[in-house]
Amino acid sequence: MSDNPTIAIDAMGGDYGPSETVRGAVLAARAGGVTVLLVGDEAEVQQALAAEDAAGLPIKVIPSEGVIVEGEHPARALRSKPKSSIAVSVGLVKQGMADGFISMGSTGASMAASVFLLGKFPGLERPTLGGPFNGLAPKTTIIDIGANVDCKPVQLLNFGALGASFQRSFMGFDNPRVGLLSVGSEEGKGNKLVQEAFELFKASGLNFVGNVEGNEIFTDKADVIVCDGFVGNVLLKYTEGMAEAAARYLAGALGADSPAVKAISGLALAEEHGAAPLFGVNGLALAGHGRAKAEGVAASVVLAKRFLEVDLVKHMREDLAAAQERAGVSGDDADEVEA
Amino acid sequence: MSDNPTIAIDAMGGDYGPSETVRGAVLAARAGGVTVLLVGDEAEVQQALAAEDAAGLPIKVIPSEGVIVEGEHPARALRSKPKSSIAVSVGLVKQGMADGFISMGSTGASMAASVFLLGKFPGLERPTLGGPFNGLAPKTTIIDIGANVDCKPVQLLNFGALGASFQRSFMGFDNPRVGLLSVGSEEGKGNKLVQEAFELFKASGLNFVGNVEGNEIFTDKADVIVCDGFVGNVLLKYTEGMAEAAARYLAGALGADSPAVKAISGLALAEEHGAAPLFGVNGLALAGHGRAKAEGVAASVVLAKRFLEVDLVKHMREDLAAAQERAGVSGDDADEVEA
Repeated sequence: MSDNPTIAIDAMGGDYGPSETVRGAVLAARAGGVTVLLVGDEAEVQQALAAEDAAGLPIKVIPSEGVIVEGEHPARALRSKPKSSIAVSVGLVKQGMADGFISMGSTGASMAASVFLLGKFPGLERPTLGGPFNGLAPKTTIIDIGANVDCKPVQLLNFGALGASFQRSFMGFDNPRVGLLSVGSEEGKGNKLVQEAFELFKASGLNFVGNVEGNEIFTDKADVIVCDGFVGNVLLKYTEGMAEAAARYLAGALGADSPAVKAISGLALAEEHGAAPLFGVNGLALAGHGRAKAEGVAASVVLAKRFLEVDLVKHMREDLAAAQERAGVSGDDADEVEA
Repeated sequence: MSDNPTIAIDAMGGDYGPSETVRGAVLAARAGGVTVLLVGDEAEVQQALAAEDAAGLPIKVIPSEGVIVEGEHPARALRSKPKSSIAVSVGLVKQGMADGFISMGSTGASMAASVFLLGKFPGLERPTLGGPFNGLAPKTTIIDIGANVDCKPVQLLNFGALGASFQRSFMGFDNPRVGLLSVGSEEGKGNKLVQEAFELFKASGLNFVGNVEGNEIFTDKADVIVCDGFVGNVLLKYTEGMAEAAARYLAGALGADSPAVKAISGLALAEEHGAAPLFGVNGLALAGHGRAKAEGVAASVVLAKRFLEVDLVKHMREDLAAAQERAGVSGDDADEVEA
């Protein structure tokens, strides 16, 4: 990849649209080492750009028509709005005109467009989402966090392999430990899904440490903790809600200016955090929080550059294939594993 | 029920055995209004009693043989140890010699013995466990928290009916709001289990408020939040682990003597908390934390008395039958609902 990559930004995405995405693009371009393609309604984006001090910066506007909003059915919306900002953004990656894209809009639409235009890794039913999301376990990746709610055992294996690849290529772990989230630590504990996945994990060549209980997320038992997207999404949102509730509780008990309130608030996911990569598509795709502001957009560009530097997508594809082969599930046969 | 109930305590249960359970029984008996039956190895229990100032207190020792420990297969262990402390304790309830029992030992064994000797409510596959467990949402019951890990939709309905009955009879809610834990608030969001259960809840006559997301546990959207026991157990343990990790984090950031550390630590479930009732068996059965100390045992006796005062078991059985009838699933047909 080039030292000066090109990143497409869905300028219409997120709760604030161009007013924040364009400012984020300007911040990123000003920081240097990147060319930004702003994809959106040309008039709106140009107007937002005109309000910034963007002269001479490597920013281009790519026109699109229409926006897919949160709550629309992703696949249907893509068909009815083929020139929407998200579709055009992904198309730029597909055509090699961008090295990656970022959207703060509908995650479902980013995922559907990426699968449709870029394709997914062999043996993967759907892409997955994961990462560290709890400030009290800041290096522990939990995967899946909502992309796949009804899973087969082989899907959990895929999450484990992709999560481990992420921890190794990006977070710097030599041999990341992978655990299955469960209700007991011994083999055989858990629901049917976990019990069946356990066998696949043992054969996968991953550094599998067995089951991890809910409290063990905080005791450094594993670097990657695998669960289905229903459980992961509940945990993600529970964590956000609990951090906010704890901050309110401490403010009530100790006063709003207490340093404890600030310390706890800083642990929750915040607006300035960057987007997360979709795991399992043939290209760099980052989906972020709708509440992201300009700083979050700029932080996402920095993340995208780092993902390109470590060749994240290539490593993930290779690591997934290797784990599937060792576990005896390969490529498109993956669906047939479940008895 | 009598104003002076008789409560059987499994003296051998819990991590500390008679040294704590007997002291807990003495504390409870001294507080008055209850007769305590201490079930266990006669010599051990008498020795522990002799170390206390128990003269004149309404405490009797009932001999038993053997203990079922955590990790044993509950049903098998009950067959091989029919005179174990837990089996004898439940037998006293069965024979009408005790109004309820408390065990800090294996929850699985308490459940199996209760089902075997007392029987479960009609239409219930297995008993369930639930209650408020997060100090930041202290009046919100989450159910099931680990008794049933692979559930059918009708089981979630049963959890909702039993949880609502608990909130009404014991926590004082007139018309408790019941929600389904899910990954989106609109109908249709969630995994298959939640989607199918949604229909049953709508027809159940419960005060059903729809789906509740993970963060909404802290926003007072529902008084009863229903999930399968895999999700509930992960959340329960995650909460305990997160409270401990937050206390450590604040101690590191602000010093161990910071009032914030004390405030956060107080939110986690602690050793002095009382046991929780098993929902769905024909008798009062309380299962507590193995780490419970004497204060926790004594608190459990107080809880047991209050459950008897409000006739919790009778209300639960009636409320479950009513919800099942309205949802069109009745008694032993409950299993056949799932298409």
